[in-house]
Amino acid sequence: MANKYTSLDQVRERIDELDEQIQRLINARAECAQAVAQIKTQSGHTEADFYRPEREAQILRQVIERNPGPVSGEEMARLFREIMSACLALEQAMRIAFLGPEGTYTHDAALKHFGHSVTAVPHGAIDEIFRDVEAGFSHYGVVPIENSTEGVVDHTLDMFLNSPLQISGEVELRIHHCLLAKGDSLDGIKAVYAHQQALAQCREWLDENLKDVPRIAVNSNAAAAKMAAADEAVVAIASMAAAELYALNSIACNIEDEPDNTTRFLVIGRQSPAPSGKDKTSLLVSTPNRPGGLNNLLKPLADAGISMTRIESRPSRRAMWEYVFFIDIEGHKDDVNVAAALDVLADRSSVLKVLGSYPAAVV
Amino acid sequence: MANKYTSLDQVRERIDELDEQIQRLINARAECAQAVAQIKTQSGHTEADFYRPEREAQILRQVIERNPGPVSGEEMARLFREIMSACLALEQAMRIAFLGPEGTYTHDAALKHFGHSVTAVPHGAIDEIFRDVEAGFSHYGVVPIENSTEGVVDHTLDMFLNSPLQISGEVELRIHHCLLAKGDSLDGIKAVYAHQQALAQCREWLDENLKDVPRIAVNSNAAAAKMAAADEAVVAIASMAAAELYALNSIACNIEDEPDNTTRFLVIGRQSPAPSGKDKTSLLVSTPNRPGGLNNLLKPLADAGISMTRIESRPSRRAMWEYVFFIDIEGHKDDVNVAAALDVLADRSSVLKVLGSYPAAVV
Repeated sequence: MANKYTSLDQVRERIDELDEQIQRLINARAECAQAVAQIKTQSGHTEADFYRPEREAQILRQVIERNPGPVSGEEMARLFREIMSACLALEQAMRIAFLGPEGTYTHDAALKHFGHSVTAVPHGAIDEIFRDVEAGFSHYGVVPIENSTEGVVDHTLDMFLNSPLQISGEVELRIHHCLLAKGDSLDGIKAVYAHQQALAQCREWLDENLKDVPRIAVNSNAAAAKMAAADEAVVAIASMAAAELYALNSIACNIEDEPDNTTRFLVIGRQSPAPSGKDKTSLLVSTPNRPGGLNNLLKPLADAGISMTRIESRPSRRAMWEYVFFIDIEGHKDDVNVAAALDVLADRSSVLKVLGSYPAAVV
Repeated sequence: MANKYTSLDQVRERIDELDEQIQRLINARAECAQAVAQIKTQSGHTEADFYRPEREAQILRQVIERNPGPVSGEEMARLFREIMSACLALEQAMRIAFLGPEGTYTHDAALKHFGHSVTAVPHGAIDEIFRDVEAGFSHYGVVPIENSTEGVVDHTLDMFLNSPLQISGEVELRIHHCLLAKGDSLDGIKAVYAHQQALAQCREWLDENLKDVPRIAVNSNAAAAKMAAADEAVVAIASMAAAELYALNSIACNIEDEPDNTTRFLVIGRQSPAPSGKDKTSLLVSTPNRPGGLNNLLKPLADAGISMTRIESRPSRRAMWEYVFFIDIEGHKDDVNVAAALDVLADRSSVLKVLGSYPAAVV
């Protein structure tokens, strides 16, 4: 980059000018947010309508699309998330329930999605979060749904069987694995412990650096870290948070083969977002147990050219249901093709519940 | 506020315009930050000089001073902290060591001070953080120094006795107390447990709501929460994080009498910040044990009209030192009056170590 400034004073003066303009514009934006709230209140909307997930997703996508840099699109989206969060807070003190304790990935996901101007309240169990949002005490809840190392969070799926809540958003977080040990070298290491998915996700690194050391799959990465803390000849694959919790050294970080190792969370609420242009719809479907039942169920989606991004089966806890499937598809339930396919699906299944249509995670 | 917009579409169009301008200006600001880095590199500065605590403090003070709203000065400063953090990250991947685990107040303090674009690395002990920064592995460290409920963090003070590190900043966090219980009402409660300072800080609330219930001081609020978890007739005063950790209900929150209940943290680094216009200086002083020793020591400061904001005495671990005092004063060691007073102080004390001059916490 050619430098058009020759002295620090000169460029700092320019930064001060820019800061003043940025500040003025952020305050002007906040005034607009107040105007939106005023118009909505006049036209009889309730407080719940002040936050519109689809509108926020559209703004963030636009920010990323038009971003020329040098700040990266992802960082710029993060800054705008915070600016929108600060503007919204002037109109509505948003209360977000999340699966605690503080400092967990779910906490990170809640703040990533709603920004830091909300009040994020930790809860001890997933059903508590559903009850809290159902009762209207919190505006939204954030719960884990797919953990790349521990698989699907069954308890969250089960809650949807009986809850009237809607899925109103999804959040994806990048997760990194570290190699943790009591000592600070790999000499004398006799075993690597981790959840089997973490072992699989770090296979290349392990092949290169701990080729002949046995890999032992345990219940969770946290359990592996606990074992490493008790035995100097054991290393564990786990998060930096686990390193801290069990006073372990991090010998290597980001050892996962795929740099895009993510964990997914759902935002649950009482409202249903309008289409944002790039949405997902989550379905709960059950079908009688007969040959070809599942194929028969999925055919309307395939016929309509609708992509399925996930399917999970769960044992039903109601006698009348043979199987329960949780299915994520691309598109919004109000999209013409999706609505038509859902009609056909409803005819073929004993139960079809639309858990929500919501903007796909932006970053 | 008079509303100059009549339709949502109209105001949303205006928001989109503003967002585009804000985005353009943030990228222009990032380009300026790159220009600063380029000039510094050309003039032989090292990477360590890219982050200037005094310059950041000045910018944030200016932001708060000129802020007309509607976004509050504190929120606006938070947004600018994040914008500066994103700009700096383009030039230098900042690594910040903090007293973990993740999700603690020290973690919050580190992110409040440096923004979310840094890599914040948890450590298990305060001495590890000093070593990590001394070795140049992390750029800065964040450690607790005064905890309003647990008092001064002695271990941090002790580390300064032998460390070559400088204090390069301070962070203040507001801390809230909650009343936690296994049940969800105050009926049948036989005792309130908490650290004695927390009991004192919530006296008014307790007088009003639990007048005849005995108050029992224990070692820490976390210990109190643990006891409440074991006995339904006990309530504890502690943080929301403790509620989560011990699966307790929060019966009431923000029950402290003073809403400005804060905890203080120090930022430690290898460089000494230049004056920012509103600074503090931390001193370590020892004096021979003779009558009037302390008065004699403090006189030069009083004579020069320099305010002392804190004084703590610690037993010296060196035989030659009778007492060690940690003193915070207003002003920068390079200020003329401070420099002169420090000269006098040096003559009168057996040891005088300037632990650092740094910008006073902005918000």
